[in-house]
Amino acid sequence: MPNTKKYFTVGPTEIFPQIYEYIQTAREEKIFSISHRSREFSEIYRNADNYLRKLLNIPANFHIAFLSSATECMERVIENTVEKESFHIINGFFARRFREISEQCSKQTNEYKVNLHKKFEPSEIDIPDTAELITITHNDTSSGHAIEMPQIKTIKEKYPNIPIALDATTSVPYYGIDFNLIDTAFFSVQKGFGMPPGLGVIIFKDTLVEKSKYLSDKNFNRGTFFNFERLKDNALKLQTTVTPNIPAIFILSKLSELLFNYGIDTIRKETELKAGLIYDTFKKSGYLKPYIGSEENCSKTTIVAVSGKDVDELTKYLNLNGFEISKGYREKKDDQIRIANFPTQSILATEELCKLFLNFGK
Amino acid sequence: MPNTKKYFTVGPTEIFPQIYEYIQTAREEKIFSISHRSREFSEIYRNADNYLRKLLNIPANFHIAFLSSATECMERVIENTVEKESFHIINGFFARRFREISEQCSKQTNEYKVNLHKKFEPSEIDIPDTAELITITHNDTSSGHAIEMPQIKTIKEKYPNIPIALDATTSVPYYGIDFNLIDTAFFSVQKGFGMPPGLGVIIFKDTLVEKSKYLSDKNFNRGTFFNFERLKDNALKLQTTVTPNIPAIFILSKLSELLFNYGIDTIRKETELKAGLIYDTFKKSGYLKPYIGSEENCSKTTIVAVSGKDVDELTKYLNLNGFEISKGYREKKDDQIRIANFPTQSILATEELCKLFLNFGK
Repeated sequence: MPNTKKYFTVGPTEIFPQIYEYIQTAREEKIFSISHRSREFSEIYRNADNYLRKLLNIPANFHIAFLSSATECMERVIENTVEKESFHIINGFFARRFREISEQCSKQTNEYKVNLHKKFEPSEIDIPDTAELITITHNDTSSGHAIEMPQIKTIKEKYPNIPIALDATTSVPYYGIDFNLIDTAFFSVQKGFGMPPGLGVIIFKDTLVEKSKYLSDKNFNRGTFFNFERLKDNALKLQTTVTPNIPAIFILSKLSELLFNYGIDTIRKETELKAGLIYDTFKKSGYLKPYIGSEENCSKTTIVAVSGKDVDELTKYLNLNGFEISKGYREKKDDQIRIANFPTQSILATEELCKLFLNFGK
Repeated sequence: MPNTKKYFTVGPTEIFPQIYEYIQTAREEKIFSISHRSREFSEIYRNADNYLRKLLNIPANFHIAFLSSATECMERVIENTVEKESFHIINGFFARRFREISEQCSKQTNEYKVNLHKKFEPSEIDIPDTAELITITHNDTSSGHAIEMPQIKTIKEKYPNIPIALDATTSVPYYGIDFNLIDTAFFSVQKGFGMPPGLGVIIFKDTLVEKSKYLSDKNFNRGTFFNFERLKDNALKLQTTVTPNIPAIFILSKLSELLFNYGIDTIRKETELKAGLIYDTFKKSGYLKPYIGSEENCSKTTIVAVSGKDVDELTKYLNLNGFEISKGYREKKDDQIRIANFPTQSILATEELCKLFLNFGK
């Protein structure tokens, strides 16, 4: 029996149906058999690079390379940019993962823990001079806490000489990135890009390659075939350092083109319209309340609510009515829900979901 | 215009057409939207684990986990099993890559360079007592040099206490692995499994987890979320440490079942029949000669020949006739060819290819 559920899970999530057309094209052109050293593959890389740059406003002094997951991207960022010490702004579990990974790479770490219940005040953050990297989670998928670019600007202005790594996993394409403020950003494709999982995209500034070389000279393990110098050298040739996930890069290349032509402004308007519907529904529901205290930092893409009603019963009810959402992350699973608001969640389906929230228990 | 070429490239290569049926199933069941923490995904993992064990004879004291490429597997093996020193048996460029990766992880390395032009004599190898790992490339894709299990047994008997890591990238499923002789093996799926690229499979013995823990206690970077302890803990729950390439794991699960039901004996007989055709064709051709000197070590799965005729012209001729093969690796590209002989290269197509070799230049 076909699965007709609508996925509002925070990723993996609903995918673009166009993906199956792209797979049909790949079948006809035998894309899944071509060599990753072939001209054909470089053309796919070129198209992905080109449309990602246009869609996300990525400047020429940044390189775009492919890894396997956002978590691997975190690891490669730490290995290539930190000798001794990193600093982490913690607005959820995924932000904490970045710190954890730095520690696993034997680095010293410090953090600023964001109070999720009040407005985020970046000017309050004190970062030691010895920090070589600041990590920021643009939109933490676990908490639904989003940090907007003006807040990142405040940090950059206070610490102009410390590179910033931005985990943009569930923020792009909706949340814009000002690449003048950051040095590297990365995301996985099973969120805002509405793809099946299995690909990480890392975007890094040319200047970070120097740090990577320095670490190599000092005999650090900077991630073998996945170090920034090698990623850059290959990216310049529109190649990957190892045999990559060609199906995913092919699909991403097609989808970035699709999204760019659809228009980032339209994507943003639709995202805001749907986010408005969802937050309004929380107010009307009487039992759902945004988890994040400050409206400014309430995510538009992964919306988290504390539920006054039983979460198990709620998700079962939604399931019976053809909808799948995410529960709260880990220990929050019994009293929170998380709702995806990516380009693949349609306005119509969002309206249906909102009605179900209001009808639940009636 | 559809691409109707037959791929005899050494990977990425011809894929199983069944893959498109599996994608259709995935579409109906919305597999690409399910959570990697869901029961559905664990069932996919269970099926992949189950049929890989049956197909490749993997014992219960080995864990099966998923990474993104064979190169990443090399990195994770070194990070989790070597504190100071590794030893590498070099029978081609990919064997050399393993050593290179160990060096990039700041380890001391030594090697035994196999003479590709005579019979491989493993009893000649001297390995320092200080080596913590021996790496062996089962079938080197660059040279077409295969090391058979009895030869690995000789090494194991001489050095029973040094763990062995086996790069099985282009050897499985044809070449059997005796898991009593080795401690970890890995492969990527775009070779003998006839899949699109983007997934590495790592199989490791429970005992290696102890070494990984030891290295962690000593503050080594053992590969963050991809360390053996974490991979094991998650594998036991039929989960992955991070969001994985679910499409590839789903396809692998289906394909392993297909190959197991087809029968490993049949796969082996067909592989040998086709290898026989190809090597016979070399003899008859008058211009193609196996690169590997000893018949015992001549690969059955990635067959490499030195060409007395112009390789560019030969591959162009094959292309015009609908066939794609690989040229020699790197600097060998002008005078060698490489021919895949995986389960996805059919007997009929192999016969056609052999005829073309004989007709070339006539």
